[in-house]
Amino acid sequence: MTTKLKVAIAGLGRMGARHANHFYSYTPRAEVVAVTSPVQQELDWAKTNLGNPRTYLSFDELLEKEKDLQAIVIASATSVHAEQAIKAINKGLHVLCEKPLSTNIEQSQKVVDAYRESLKTRPNQKVICGFSRRFDASYRDAFEKLQSGLIGRPSVFRSQTCDKLDPSGFFVEYAQFSGGIFVDCSIHDIDLALWFFGEDSVVKSVTAVGITAVSPELRKYNDRDNALGIVEFYDGKIAQLYCSRMMAAGQEDSTEITGTAGKLAVNTQPAANLVNIYEPTGIRREIPPHYYGRFRDAFITEANEFTACCLDNTPPPMKLEGAVAAVRIGCALQESLITGKKIEFDERGNRITRANL
Amino acid sequence: MTTKLKVAIAGLGRMGARHANHFYSYTPRAEVVAVTSPVQQELDWAKTNLGNPRTYLSFDELLEKEKDLQAIVIASATSVHAEQAIKAINKGLHVLCEKPLSTNIEQSQKVVDAYRESLKTRPNQKVICGFSRRFDASYRDAFEKLQSGLIGRPSVFRSQTCDKLDPSGFFVEYAQFSGGIFVDCSIHDIDLALWFFGEDSVVKSVTAVGITAVSPELRKYNDRDNALGIVEFYDGKIAQLYCSRMMAAGQEDSTEITGTAGKLAVNTQPAANLVNIYEPTGIRREIPPHYYGRFRDAFITEANEFTACCLDNTPPPMKLEGAVAAVRIGCALQESLITGKKIEFDERGNRITRANL
Amino acid sequence: MTTKLKVAIAGLGRMGARHANHFYSYTPRAEVVAVTSPVQQELDWAKTNLGNPRTYLSFDELLEKEKDLQAIVIASATSVHAEQAIKAINKGLHVLCEKPLSTNIEQSQKVVDAYRESLKTRPNQKVICGFSRRFDASYRDAFEKLQSGLIGRPSVFRSQTCDKLDPSGFFVEYAQFSGGIFVDCSIHDIDLALWFFGEDSVVKSVTAVGITAVSPELRKYNDRDNALGIVEFYDGKIAQLYCSRMMAAGQEDSTEITGTAGKLAVNTQPAANLVNIYEPTGIRREIPPHYYGRFRDAFITEANEFTACCLDNTPPPMKLEGAVAAVRIGCALQESLITGKKIEFDERGNRITRANL
Amino acid sequence: MTTKLKVAIAGLGRMGARHANHFYSYTPRAEVVAVTSPVQQELDWAKTNLGNPRTYLSFDELLEKEKDLQAIVIASATSVHAEQAIKAINKGLHVLCEKPLSTNIEQSQKVVDAYRESLKTRPNQKVICGFSRRFDASYRDAFEKLQSGLIGRPSVFRSQTCDKLDPSGFFVEYAQFSGGIFVDCSIHDIDLALWFFGEDSVVKSVTAVGITAVSPELRKYNDRDNALGIVEFYDGKIAQLYCSRMMAAGQEDSTEITGTAGKLAVNTQPAANLVNIYEPTGIRREIPPHYYGRFRDAFITEANEFTACCLDNTPPPMKLEGAVAAVRIGCALQESLITGKKIEFDERGNRITRANL
Repeated sequence: MTTKLKVAIAGLGRMGARHANHFYSYTPRAEVVAVTSPVQQELDWAKTNLGNPRTYLSFDELLEKEKDLQAIVIASATSVHAEQAIKAINKGLHVLCEKPLSTNIEQSQKVVDAYRESLKTRPNQKVICGFSRRFDASYRDAFEKLQSGLIGRPSVFRSQTCDKLDPSGFFVEYAQFSGGIFVDCSIHDIDLALWFFGEDSVVKSVTAVGITAVSPELRKYNDRDNALGIVEFYDGKIAQLYCSRMMAAGQEDSTEITGTAGKLAVNTQPAANLVNIYEPTGIRREIPPHYYGRFRDAFITEANEFTACCLDNTPPPMKLEGAVAAVRIGCALQESLITGKKIEFDERGNRITRANL
Repeated sequence: MTTKLKVAIAGLGRMGARHANHFYSYTPRAEVVAVTSPVQQELDWAKTNLGNPRTYLSFDELLEKEKDLQAIVIASATSVHAEQAIKAINKGLHVLCEKPLSTNIEQSQKVVDAYRESLKTRPNQKVICGFSRRFDASYRDAFEKLQSGLIGRPSVFRSQTCDKLDPSGFFVEYAQFSGGIFVDCSIHDIDLALWFFGEDSVVKSVTAVGITAVSPELRKYNDRDNALGIVEFYDGKIAQLYCSRMMAAGQEDSTEITGTAGKLAVNTQPAANLVNIYEPTGIRREIPPHYYGRFRDAFITEANEFTACCLDNTPPPMKLEGAVAAVRIGCALQESLITGKKIEFDERGNRITRANL
Repeated sequence: MTTKLKVAIAGLGRMGARHANHFYSYTPRAEVVAVTSPVQQELDWAKTNLGNPRTYLSFDELLEKEKDLQAIVIASATSVHAEQAIKAINKGLHVLCEKPLSTNIEQSQKVVDAYRESLKTRPNQKVICGFSRRFDASYRDAFEKLQSGLIGRPSVFRSQTCDKLDPSGFFVEYAQFSGGIFVDCSIHDIDLALWFFGEDSVVKSVTAVGITAVSPELRKYNDRDNALGIVEFYDGKIAQLYCSRMMAAGQEDSTEITGTAGKLAVNTQPAANLVNIYEPTGIRREIPPHYYGRFRDAFITEANEFTACCLDNTPPPMKLEGAVAAVRIGCALQESLITGKKIEFDERGNRITRANL
Repeated sequence: MTTKLKVAIAGLGRMGARHANHFYSYTPRAEVVAVTSPVQQELDWAKTNLGNPRTYLSFDELLEKEKDLQAIVIASATSVHAEQAIKAINKGLHVLCEKPLSTNIEQSQKVVDAYRESLKTRPNQKVICGFSRRFDASYRDAFEKLQSGLIGRPSVFRSQTCDKLDPSGFFVEYAQFSGGIFVDCSIHDIDLALWFFGEDSVVKSVTAVGITAVSPELRKYNDRDNALGIVEFYDGKIAQLYCSRMMAAGQEDSTEITGTAGKLAVNTQPAANLVNIYEPTGIRREIPPHYYGRFRDAFITEANEFTACCLDNTPPPMKLEGAVAAVRIGCALQESLITGKKIEFDERGNRITRANL
């Protein structure tokens, strides 16, 4: 029997439970040995559904007691991502951290700094921030086609992360912790822009506007339910972003990358499956209601590839630094959204302030 | 001012009125000088809407009195198509006859015979049977691509003519005169098969089955509301046909032609226009409710090209003989539909009968 | 015979010749009686192809001599649109002016002022600026669905006018006169935004960025080959625009309008016709190479509806004032594109300037 | 740790290796304990890639020695399916047998008979024949919508299984053992027809025609590379089938089921993923090259559901009898394809022979 990676899961909320299940049921080279959550009921669920792993109410206790642990998935509340990640890094564990590292740039940077420090003595340690779209088969196909030169030099990027309308008020409560719609939703699109344009792309300016079309209560948390942004890069590349909490039909996450010789479009014709329904009102297809319906396979690929790079000591599928770069752009867009001002940066990434911008 | 073709319209029912309007409003080189219909009210409509043409209750009187007439469009009841066409041919007029020439093969053949005879003394006379799809931009594009060799040797053909469900009972009444669903609907698909496979393709066998899923009353007229047919040709080509009166969403006329190196599909993703509607039930598009919504532009092209070939003495866009070939196949399919028997033909087109087929 | 509108065509270049043909061949209620162009060869073409109208090398001479003229189509060089329109208005003619009225806001406004003045004594005079998309069947269907409440309150608008790459350098030369990519291309999208959001929408701010990905020479004319813009309106509505001269596949003009209860998308899956091609590289469809391929039918509808409103003295299909509003926004975007600054307006439409914007 | 189902895999060829991998890597409740293949090299592969299971060159030896075995997957050569299935059934094992049970109706029936006999003493034994499409998410969605009444009474069925052209000659060699194109390919479509129309549907007649457009050598094995079939059922339902070995773009398996109130279409717009490529020749998407690319997820679901029904003693997802019914229809179509004769059945399923059919 081949050796399996001993993995713990921190956080068993909606997304944590999914990650746990992906590692337990769909990652043959991994073994879920322990879980932690501050909620006893979630631990009970894990006992029953994850093959009876050891359970801990305390993250720290898990780290302390699980001597053989090799890797940990951090899917707890966003507010503790960075702190938990740093502790796990310092313990020498491989870490897969849910996005974002933090809604705060400095906190995000601290995770990267801790990892860099740790790598000096543990060169084989792997730490990644899980941007699920990087594992999606369609985005990968688009990226490979781009890399092959199919569309020439990529120049204009358009991407949107648009959630289905949730009339329950969930998004309003969530806005207190999410970092704002650009940090919560568009972070994925920003990461894609950096991927497709090149990780070393330097932002020149960001501008954003937004409205509260269905949830005016969002304004008390400095958030909006629909927002548009433009990101300008120094190397003659531009990106437009749209994020929304108001889609009627379901999750609408689409991306287009236009190059000097062609264009690649991902999910501009969304569909839940291959069924079309012909009825008196026309021809209809359904689309996934939520991002998990769209990206479930990508999450499973993520679990398997993270496991493989830990076991085989191969390069991780993405660099941790990119996660900070994405948060940096997301925070700037969110600020522009609220202040109404364009924000500019010099070529080393420093913010330009001038009296008469 | 350039000379215009002097045209008369025979029949001003639903389709006749449309033809009249196409010639009056959208065929700059034609002039509607006279119309005939046994319905006074239709003649009154023509007076008002077609620039005050001369009107006749009698077809024969029109032929007699309109000395300067050059061409006539026959869009009267199917049962008089052949008779009127022959009279017009004998008068030396150019004729555009609505499909079918007749629901009866012998009658259809008589029109062709009359035209052949007439051509001996009037070599410039044009007579065509209007298969509208031959004038449709998409079918023409497909045909040109096929001709260019894009799909290799065309080998398998699939086509359907499927009408929107009409709960009024219209199709039951209509079945008395239509010649049956294969002659009325599939005639278009058969004509396309002959066009794409080559006009000289020889039928080897036909088989058909059918049901009455929504209109059992059709059985009293030996008709069905849904039918499937297979047509086998002698040169290694096969075709499958579907005709229906039961579509929920609208008119669904689609065609696929598979060759040894590729396939061309026409209207397999029907759409009324370029609009998509995103709503809580998914993404929806509407489709044309009736064949006229799908083929209006083709009818207008037909009017213009017929006019041009008459005025310029250029070859007509299709041969009249093809209209008989299509009726012949349609009638055989209709017979097979009712008898349940496969019908076979020898290579000269004669029917094979054997005791132990 | 019904009376026809006596129309003259001014300008017989690429678009002028098309307009002339639409009025001559596809507008049954209009009659092309005269044409003018400074190019003799174009007048010769008109003699032959437009039923031998009277021809003039001088616009002024046409106005003077054509005593019975009722209407004029101005499709000359953009630089003389405004001047010719004003002269025709003052002569009492109905005017259909190609877009834009002018690339200059003041000039555009002068046309509107002239029309307002003229209306005092000629209340039946019709003057419109031809935004072809307002006549497009798909945009109209979307607008009707929006009006019916299908998508709730329209809130977010996205639209793009993207031309096929033209390696001949045409767009560089053209940039000297076009007013820039936002005035030339996005003017259509801006007009659509005003139509869908309501003509009385007041702009709050505009921002734009752009690049020269394939034609760096454009910079000498202060233009770009790809540009992104955001337009913010005072009533909680936002719009994002994309214009490009670099599409590989053809003309890609698409629009999405998102409301609080749904979304309408126009041409987000472009197609030249209903043909799909199955070949070893996959499934392919072609798209129209140029805007005329996409909007030909809309131009013909425009000709017919303009003719009808003149003859029947019905309200014109759109207000002339809208054309100035669109130019105003287009010019502001173009300025922002070049200066890199966000431009803001107060609720009465006046520009806000502040030291510390 | 929950108990896992002890599974053996018989046959490790292309499809066997895939099944083995699905059970090993993607079926958390199953454990691959043993494998058998007459090819030593395949057993070696299994050692390395399936967690070191016990290996056997002889199927009989495996059955004899694996005392704790609970279930077996039979994915060996079609010619031994039935024999191996019967042996495993008699041993009391749960069996998942690749389709078809046999290309021979009598052999197929013997498997069913053995199972029925075995059930008398082992009521919890599960034996299914794996029709993968029954596990496909899109087909299941369509089936649920049909069951919910969305399309009224299902009446007309169209389905095709069309393989990508394989110029290597593979299909010719394969034709010796495949049972013919209707038994090899259309068996899936026939199973779908029985599923959608109801398992108890009784065939009234079948007719088929075919050609050899690219592989005339197939004729020596009484096979064709393209064939069309019609199946008529006694309860007013009809089906048309198309099978081919000649698709240019990839695997094209699509299905439409038309009811009295609507239609459901599955995969009529095939796509490998969500990417669209815009390039000078138009807009293109790729499609899966082979059935495994289309149905991989369905095979994994099959493995999991088979495992679950064995462990939990729940009803199997489909009845074994259906597999015989499908073979029966497939063989009749293949016979009609070769003889050119329509084959008819009475309402109890007996073949009707008459002198003057």
